[in-house]
Amino acid sequence: MTNPLDVVAIGNALVDVLAHSDDEFLTARGIEKGSMRLINAQQAEELYGQMGPGVECSGGSAANTVAGIASLGGKAGFIGKVAGDQLGKIFKHDITALGVEFNSAPTFDTSPTGRCLVFVTPDAQRTMQTFLGSAGEVSPADVDAGLIQRAQVTYFEGYLFDAPPAKQAYLKAAEIAHAAGKKVSLTLSDKFCVDRHRAEFKDLVHGHIDVLFANELEIIALYETGGFDEAVAAVRGKCDIAVLTRSEKGALIVTPEQTIEVKAQPVAKVEDTTGAGDLFAAGFLYGYTHGKPLAECGRIAAICAAEIISHVGARPDTNLAELVART
Amino acid sequence: MTNPLDVVAIGNALVDVLAHSDDEFLTARGIEKGSMRLINAQQAEELYGQMGPGVECSGGSAANTVAGIASLGGKAGFIGKVAGDQLGKIFKHDITALGVEFNSAPTFDTSPTGRCLVFVTPDAQRTMQTFLGSAGEVSPADVDAGLIQRAQVTYFEGYLFDAPPAKQAYLKAAEIAHAAGKKVSLTLSDKFCVDRHRAEFKDLVHGHIDVLFANELEIIALYETGGFDEAVAAVRGKCDIAVLTRSEKGALIVTPEQTIEVKAQPVAKVEDTTGAGDLFAAGFLYGYTHGKPLAECGRIAAICAAEIISHVGARPDTNLAELVART
Repeated sequence: MTNPLDVVAIGNALVDVLAHSDDEFLTARGIEKGSMRLINAQQAEELYGQMGPGVECSGGSAANTVAGIASLGGKAGFIGKVAGDQLGKIFKHDITALGVEFNSAPTFDTSPTGRCLVFVTPDAQRTMQTFLGSAGEVSPADVDAGLIQRAQVTYFEGYLFDAPPAKQAYLKAAEIAHAAGKKVSLTLSDKFCVDRHRAEFKDLVHGHIDVLFANELEIIALYETGGFDEAVAAVRGKCDIAVLTRSEKGALIVTPEQTIEVKAQPVAKVEDTTGAGDLFAAGFLYGYTHGKPLAECGRIAAICAAEIISHVGARPDTNLAELVART
Repeated sequence: MTNPLDVVAIGNALVDVLAHSDDEFLTARGIEKGSMRLINAQQAEELYGQMGPGVECSGGSAANTVAGIASLGGKAGFIGKVAGDQLGKIFKHDITALGVEFNSAPTFDTSPTGRCLVFVTPDAQRTMQTFLGSAGEVSPADVDAGLIQRAQVTYFEGYLFDAPPAKQAYLKAAEIAHAAGKKVSLTLSDKFCVDRHRAEFKDLVHGHIDVLFANELEIIALYETGGFDEAVAAVRGKCDIAVLTRSEKGALIVTPEQTIEVKAQPVAKVEDTTGAGDLFAAGFLYGYTHGKPLAECGRIAAICAAEIISHVGARPDTNLAELVART
């Protein structure tokens, strides 16, 4: 096959607007710290008006993951929807500047480009209020079969499950990938997202997913268990590999036969946890598509996650390939 | 007078697009490192296409200065022009979120909002390629006499001299300020800008300016002297106060009667020098409009400049009032 890809991702094409905030700002507005909530255009306008000065940078969970894979030297593609506005131009520029293949044509007849208002509190946690805009309009028609067939792994973000046509796009992409003998991967994205779509997520995980990413809260939410150990037992064997992240406690790689512990990499100062899960997935999938043993996939993943939380913003500030080589 | 202001600034309303680059990128395109060059819309489009992934944040030299004054607890206003597009919204949001008064209505019938492509090289220097867009359309009609009369100091950035109607706006604003018994201040902005407008800058400095800001290269360029000491001698007495910055060598405050040395504040690691001069001016003008002795104005200025160069971006990352209080 010409131009093989390591990973193609389908996800929300979003521009992040990052600002510092205090806890009171969030509680006064009934916003749960650490969560992602969808807001409409008017809410986004109002909240932005109350927000402090911001910094804009391309984001989107799965888009951050393919940005990380490109920074590691991998070959990646992205499927998502931007509008023909300035934020859409910024998103397209940033992802293609990294070498990621992104062919989606900007839409002029739909919502403006989506954005995610990210509040970074003094404890370095991020709380996200997302106006999906054009990002939420991904549908089966956007699934480029050729791109999927060229990729070893097709990767989905759970967040997109909030947009019904996107669910259909996932199922279509998963079928194309499996028919071509390729792998399919999913991140559960967010505990609240799991709460909203538990039954469908379970169907997806158990029937279509080879590599699952979830953090502790998300996997507990998926199986509604009392603790992490029961959730690990519940997911084992449901997919080839479950990668379960636990922040500073590291991660577990769970396969039907084994459990591999991954240590978190040391970080001098955690500045902003935005993108930690996205970059963990980037590192893991880079290793996975380059034939590394699972423990090494986990080590690369932990290095990438440590880099991203040591600065504000969810895309790497440094060349990850060089960073991994010297760690 | 109701609602008195410390400083009102007239300058370019720009959004910065910051990206890392290496020296080769600049030399291959004949771009002189450390300079600011004006480019047109098409050049901006081409150069952006070649640029790495960026981070967008509100910028503009004088706008950064009033942002700093607001962060110090001062009261400031800004006069500049944005378009009714997404970048214009971002600029307006960020500056008003800091408490700066910015009443300019977005223009819908003119150029898009201006932007400055900033290349940060590994030595932390910044090289700027500016598409002025709507920012360059400031004219005497935009000078809000009421705003000028309320401010102790009206502050201009030299950069705007590249747009002829802006020169007229400066002269008009200076006359209004002086007629109201207020002070007028100017930064020379850029050595190349001085080269382009030497005669007019001299006329402005000698006839209309009370407080002048310039770095070493700019003041040498203004008087075409062989060295810094001759330039100091040349400027002395031409305006009430000349504040001459010299990066890690600190600064000199030059009045007709005295010369005050200001030491640079220590910085653990210089990340990006963008905004160093802007924030030096912010600290100085905050002190100046709060009746501080000149040496203390210089100390506050040096603290603000040190903060801004210790991170990427030209607006403060921390509350400057608290920083100055504990330094």
